[in-house]
Amino acid sequence: MEAYFQFLILLLRGSIMFSSVFVLGCNPQQQGQTSVNQEADPLPSWTDAEAKQRIIQFVLSSVDSSHESFVPLSERIAVFDNDGTLWGEQPLYFQLAFAFDRVKAMAAEHPEWKGKEPFKSVLKGDLNAVMAGGEKSLVQIIAATHSNIPHQVFEESVKGWTDTAKHPVSGRRYIDMVYQPMLELLKYLRSNGYTTWIVSGGGIDFIRAWSEKVYGIPPAQVIGSSIKAAYAFKNGKPEITKLPQLAFVDDGPGKPVGIYQHIGKVPVIAVGNSDGDYEMLQYTTTSGEYKRLGLFIHHTDNGREVAYDSLSHIGKLKRGLTDASSNGWLLVDMKKDWKSVYPE
Amino acid sequence: MEAYFQFLILLLRGSIMFSSVFVLGCNPQQQGQTSVNQEADPLPSWTDAEAKQRIIQFVLSSVDSSHESFVPLSERIAVFDNDGTLWGEQPLYFQLAFAFDRVKAMAAEHPEWKGKEPFKSVLKGDLNAVMAGGEKSLVQIIAATHSNIPHQVFEESVKGWTDTAKHPVSGRRYIDMVYQPMLELLKYLRSNGYTTWIVSGGGIDFIRAWSEKVYGIPPAQVIGSSIKAAYAFKNGKPEITKLPQLAFVDDGPGKPVGIYQHIGKVPVIAVGNSDGDYEMLQYTTTSGEYKRLGLFIHHTDNGREVAYDSLSHIGKLKRGLTDASSNGWLLVDMKKDWKSVYPE
Repeated sequence: MEAYFQFLILLLRGSIMFSSVFVLGCNPQQQGQTSVNQEADPLPSWTDAEAKQRIIQFVLSSVDSSHESFVPLSERIAVFDNDGTLWGEQPLYFQLAFAFDRVKAMAAEHPEWKGKEPFKSVLKGDLNAVMAGGEKSLVQIIAATHSNIPHQVFEESVKGWTDTAKHPVSGRRYIDMVYQPMLELLKYLRSNGYTTWIVSGGGIDFIRAWSEKVYGIPPAQVIGSSIKAAYAFKNGKPEITKLPQLAFVDDGPGKPVGIYQHIGKVPVIAVGNSDGDYEMLQYTTTSGEYKRLGLFIHHTDNGREVAYDSLSHIGKLKRGLTDASSNGWLLVDMKKDWKSVYPE
Repeated sequence: MEAYFQFLILLLRGSIMFSSVFVLGCNPQQQGQTSVNQEADPLPSWTDAEAKQRIIQFVLSSVDSSHESFVPLSERIAVFDNDGTLWGEQPLYFQLAFAFDRVKAMAAEHPEWKGKEPFKSVLKGDLNAVMAGGEKSLVQIIAATHSNIPHQVFEESVKGWTDTAKHPVSGRRYIDMVYQPMLELLKYLRSNGYTTWIVSGGGIDFIRAWSEKVYGIPPAQVIGSSIKAAYAFKNGKPEITKLPQLAFVDDGPGKPVGIYQHIGKVPVIAVGNSDGDYEMLQYTTTSGEYKRLGLFIHHTDNGREVAYDSLSHIGKLKRGLTDASSNGWLLVDMKKDWKSVYPE
């Protein structure tokens, strides 16, 4: 057990410092729509500032066969981090909220949890006590909720949770805390022949359960951290079981490796929001042949969302912020560049 | 080293029994075309027998929204084994021929190989002596030619080899030993909205280097056995290096796991030719919801190709042959069902 799930510790490392930094507004101010014709504007939730202009110029030149920056259809690959890039991640990764809720749902089958930490504190709803247990507690919780379970059963439990579970502060369902400007960007890229991929430090199975419905990204285009799995044929039925063994950590320098393993080509566009995405942007934008685009979503909006970067325990953006300019990466200022944050 | 590359031993296990079973004809007899209109016939290299009819009926009903067997576009996934299903595999897996040629190409950098087995025998062209060395020899050869190498360098070496290397018996380039009827089937499925995937026991990087050009299957839709990899940024350039550590064995019960990891959905059509594909067909055809199709290519043609099944060391088809009928799997009789084997 000790050696297992260390990838989830990586994933969750910030969550240990559970604190009061979370200041998400319950009633996010929606800035008014401008008079831009939405038919003609592929990114209506983006303000008409530099970020939007650079994105559109990049895409238009990449699909123009007479342009020097033309990218053939088969090479139009765009990769996106998930937590903090496509949906929220504060005050703790949503996958961890799922794990806590699973402990509650599974408690009837585990009467011993009532007297056993960290499950006892989860069941009492005392998350500060859970977090005080550090990595060891989180490993136990993730192991109990994410492994030794048929894949299909796990998938159904994620689907059921995302259909109903709500964020404690915003009151929105977690899957309604996806970023509207990013939904538009995904759609815009696909309408220009790009395949859109998720490359997340989060668990691949967790994201795949809802990515097609929420983002229009099929499971085959989701890359994430993973544990091993085994196939068996039981009582006339095939079954894939998730095992308590680490398979792959898709974070930091793992992201280019995940891209190489799943896509086998270098992306043309990479979008992230934290230093865990640094190598993904680096791999993308320093590879030759085509002109390429790297973007960091900078969480600058303390009114409609949460402002955080170099000092945050979750989604820390320090090295990326320092090097963005010299690396030619575009910083998207959430407060200035986004007219709205969440879908209406 | 001992623990490494065992997956390649699995891959190559038949090759150890290198023998004189190879009887591929140098001048394959091309059966005459019938008068079928090729414009209207999606599978012109297939004879108008049961196999072709069943395949076409299955596809047509799967795309007919009024039919009870309709499959939505997002679920139209077809998976294909590679060796023996999409191209030849006798008298030894073509990837092993590549490895032997790499040893020769790398020999100048390794003067010590002249006096060291198994490299010495490879360099002398004495393949029977190489094979006599058993698994240990093959592990050494694969380790020397497939790892501790930047991915891009490996890819270029595979591309260079496939562009020129020829099969010792047929005289054709290996990439011209793909099966014409299967090229037509891949194209037919794609024209009906199916995504076509390779699920091979062979090395994923080896196949990806030429799959898009030869099969129209991009690297992202190739699943195979793999070794680990690492990312580094050196002298201003990103580099993925292949490491001498096993990552995944995509054979037998590993194939459903590989499908789960890369696709995240159960295929609708699965095609193989050996018992290493048994679980892939089982996983595909026993999963519920949609009607599904399992096919085994049965190598019955000793004139135009090689006839082999239950007694073969490579591509053994025994359990699959026994169970095909009771499992509802279609056996494609290469001699009777294919008008031609290779592209003109």
